[in-house]
Amino acid sequence: MIFTMPATVKEILAAEAKGQEVELHAWVRSCRDSKNISFLNLNDGSCVSGIQVVVDEECRKASPAFAQTDQINGINQISNGASLRVKGRLVASQGNLQAVEIQASGIELLGAAPQDTYPLQKKRHSFEFLREISHLRGRSNSIGAVMRLRNRLSMLVHEFFQQHGFYYIHTPIITVSDAEGAGEMFRVESSGCLDEGRGGESLGEKSAEEKSTGKKRKYFFGQEAFLTVSGQMEGEVYAHSHGRVYTFGPTFRAEESNTSRHLAEFWMIEPEVAFLELDGLMDLAEALVRHLIGGTLRHCAEELELLNKWIEPELLRSLQSVTESEHFVRISYTEAIALLEGAVQGGKKFDYRVAWEDGLQTEHERWLTEEHFRQPVIVYNYPAEGKAFYMKQNEDGKTVRGMDVLVPRLGEIIGGSQREDDYEKLKARMLADGMDPEHYQWYLDLRRFGGTPHSGFGLGFERIVQYVTGMKNIRDVIPFPRAVGQAS
Amino acid sequence: MIFTMPATVKEILAAEAKGQEVELHAWVRSCRDSKNISFLNLNDGSCVSGIQVVVDEECRKASPAFAQTDQINGINQISNGASLRVKGRLVASQGNLQAVEIQASGIELLGAAPQDTYPLQKKRHSFEFLREISHLRGRSNSIGAVMRLRNRLSMLVHEFFQQHGFYYIHTPIITVSDAEGAGEMFRVESSGCLDEGRGGESLGEKSAEEKSTGKKRKYFFGQEAFLTVSGQMEGEVYAHSHGRVYTFGPTFRAEESNTSRHLAEFWMIEPEVAFLELDGLMDLAEALVRHLIGGTLRHCAEELELLNKWIEPELLRSLQSVTESEHFVRISYTEAIALLEGAVQGGKKFDYRVAWEDGLQTEHERWLTEEHFRQPVIVYNYPAEGKAFYMKQNEDGKTVRGMDVLVPRLGEIIGGSQREDDYEKLKARMLADGMDPEHYQWYLDLRRFGGTPHSGFGLGFERIVQYVTGMKNIRDVIPFPRAVGQAS
Repeated sequence: MIFTMPATVKEILAAEAKGQEVELHAWVRSCRDSKNISFLNLNDGSCVSGIQVVVDEECRKASPAFAQTDQINGINQISNGASLRVKGRLVASQGNLQAVEIQASGIELLGAAPQDTYPLQKKRHSFEFLREISHLRGRSNSIGAVMRLRNRLSMLVHEFFQQHGFYYIHTPIITVSDAEGAGEMFRVESSGCLDEGRGGESLGEKSAEEKSTGKKRKYFFGQEAFLTVSGQMEGEVYAHSHGRVYTFGPTFRAEESNTSRHLAEFWMIEPEVAFLELDGLMDLAEALVRHLIGGTLRHCAEELELLNKWIEPELLRSLQSVTESEHFVRISYTEAIALLEGAVQGGKKFDYRVAWEDGLQTEHERWLTEEHFRQPVIVYNYPAEGKAFYMKQNEDGKTVRGMDVLVPRLGEIIGGSQREDDYEKLKARMLADGMDPEHYQWYLDLRRFGGTPHSGFGLGFERIVQYVTGMKNIRDVIPFPRAVGQAS
Repeated sequence: MIFTMPATVKEILAAEAKGQEVELHAWVRSCRDSKNISFLNLNDGSCVSGIQVVVDEECRKASPAFAQTDQINGINQISNGASLRVKGRLVASQGNLQAVEIQASGIELLGAAPQDTYPLQKKRHSFEFLREISHLRGRSNSIGAVMRLRNRLSMLVHEFFQQHGFYYIHTPIITVSDAEGAGEMFRVESSGCLDEGRGGESLGEKSAEEKSTGKKRKYFFGQEAFLTVSGQMEGEVYAHSHGRVYTFGPTFRAEESNTSRHLAEFWMIEPEVAFLELDGLMDLAEALVRHLIGGTLRHCAEELELLNKWIEPELLRSLQSVTESEHFVRISYTEAIALLEGAVQGGKKFDYRVAWEDGLQTEHERWLTEEHFRQPVIVYNYPAEGKAFYMKQNEDGKTVRGMDVLVPRLGEIIGGSQREDDYEKLKARMLADGMDPEHYQWYLDLRRFGGTPHSGFGLGFERIVQYVTGMKNIRDVIPFPRAVGQAS
């Protein structure tokens, strides 16, 4: 069985097969009617470009769609947003934008888009407005391009890890662990159990248990369960069986921050590698970022040009500067503080004090990557204070083997660490953080049975999509953003 | 910057680069000591095979690890499950199982696995036992192989759709819609809001709103929110902008069925295609199944042989029979009932009655695919009664354009349909099902603005992993299974 699908606009434009008969399904982007001829621009979402369709008088007469008129305005329904089936022949284009256009022999209207009610007009809409019509905004040029870039970045992530011998692992979404130790998780409960404390009104069907015993189950999972904030701990489990693994899945934060930087639901990429130490981890992070940026430059030129023109004029230049740089700067946290102190002495003003104990603020990170080095910077060996319990302690007693990758224009894009692989040290840190080691015995076990030095990091997928598209609001780089007050 | 990682066992065995110096990190699968020499079998999770490491007397003396003894048993710690760093040279193997082995020059113990407490012994363990140690079971041969096959199947899914011009779309996990119309969803709420009805005891940090107004937010998302049961409806949205899209993400059912066939959290693949009708959808489904099975046969021969030997003796034969079949049988539901009625008249006994109004039971599906046709079968045009509201109604007034793909050994593996694209018919079906059309106006809008014939299906990812691995219990094909009473 040989399986093919009809050619898309992208494929037709790439093949330039003049003389070929085609059948194309697509949506109208524009329609210019003159006396003897109509010019349609059709787009099917496969690329930024539409393809020009030329409809001569003979074809117009043969196509009932051109006679069908809008009940309200009395104009024909081949208008912006309508979907068509077009038959015709590819011919050399008269214009100089594209090599081929379609000389139509038949046009069929599949679905109209009445211009008096269709929310998407030919003009540019604000992103605020587009967010209110999230079921239609994918049809706009910019959001359409962002989602194609998002697809490409997803594939580049897989390509990178598969090429380097990693296995893709689906870590669980519903969990009873808490890798970050915060109080910002979402609780999950079945409708049948959730109302336990609500006076007994039933939100759903009665459970089998309820039917037989008359008693409701308190917790579906036997205990309180939450949406994951990170697949790291489970990633560590599989790093200890499969060596090199990565996750790529949704993660959640119940943060009530209604900003352009926060989502309640976002996708994360988390590699976890056995036998890898901090230096190797920085190599891995740098190589991944280069692969993602190089790959989008190679595969998505048309989308990037559109976004460079309309969204972020520095986009192409800054992406190219990353791939052209020889290597990312790597400095220890202590060195970074020294550089910042030097800048302050030289007259640079920051809102926040520069001090080893105070940590790096966003303005400090931006100075390092945008003003001082003007390229991506990896900062490593952070103060232990305030860092997660699982980061490996350095022998200085003060710092841990954590690292952050900072990029111009966006700031932190990756955070990771070598993991504590000493059973006793890890247990002591858990106790110090108020965690119950018994609840995490499975995690401690990794240090008890065939333990290894190992490392991993997290890359927020929407962050890299923002970086590569230049989009300012994180809600515009995910198809259906979820945030406080918003789930539709 | 050129980035490479150390060679894995899989890469070393494939390259057969005799004479090369290597450094390998891996875990001990077995260790045989004799007077002047030790033979280790090391595995790093990259493949089923381990690699043999030969340690002569000189290397043993030079490697402190061989002198370190277990405190309890007084034996050396290079035992099953321990992790090692090995340096040595690749030489032609003395045995005939593999072309190369490592002649070690130095062995370093990274992490011991005390044999008195390490739960994984050299012997075979039951899957029930392995499920109790989900943080270690990836190290077993069978679960290790299943997870590598799962990785490969994930990549084959992406490869197939990308080759055919599809875009990967991340549909939301948290939703206020309900694509299946069931009462079996999980509710999601932030810890800070969830306790509203619980007497005011706070489960988390106070929200900003709570701090400023003294009042708690009732719902984080402004209304009750749930975990998605399907990305279909949102997939339809993007099919109307990007033409061909697919999802591949987690979905949830709060079913209290504690069986070997049910999970509360599982991954689904859902293509959704504009301008595609039922015939094309069946082509797409068949092509995908063939691509997945053909690809695993090509890429995972070693894993499949292992599973064929230990898990399912029919595995290889049945997978090959799918790729060798010329095409999947396609019969309408009405034809399927006629065949079953013929069988009953011929003396075949079923537990359930065969009748057009009664629907197909599992035993009927199995008879069709395992006994009658002995190959995959696609059944289409099901009775409208009992099928989802979004399936396109046929003109006979009785059936809808739904289809199921049935495979021997497992039964239904794919279910899909052409979608109702008539605004009024869809709205009428929603009302008949007790749905509020206003709540789904965005979904109806797809039929109002540039609507098209379109189709899609769902493939339960764990189902295809089960089919390809022969595993009997669905909990053994996902790294961390979630089911009623189980979330750790």
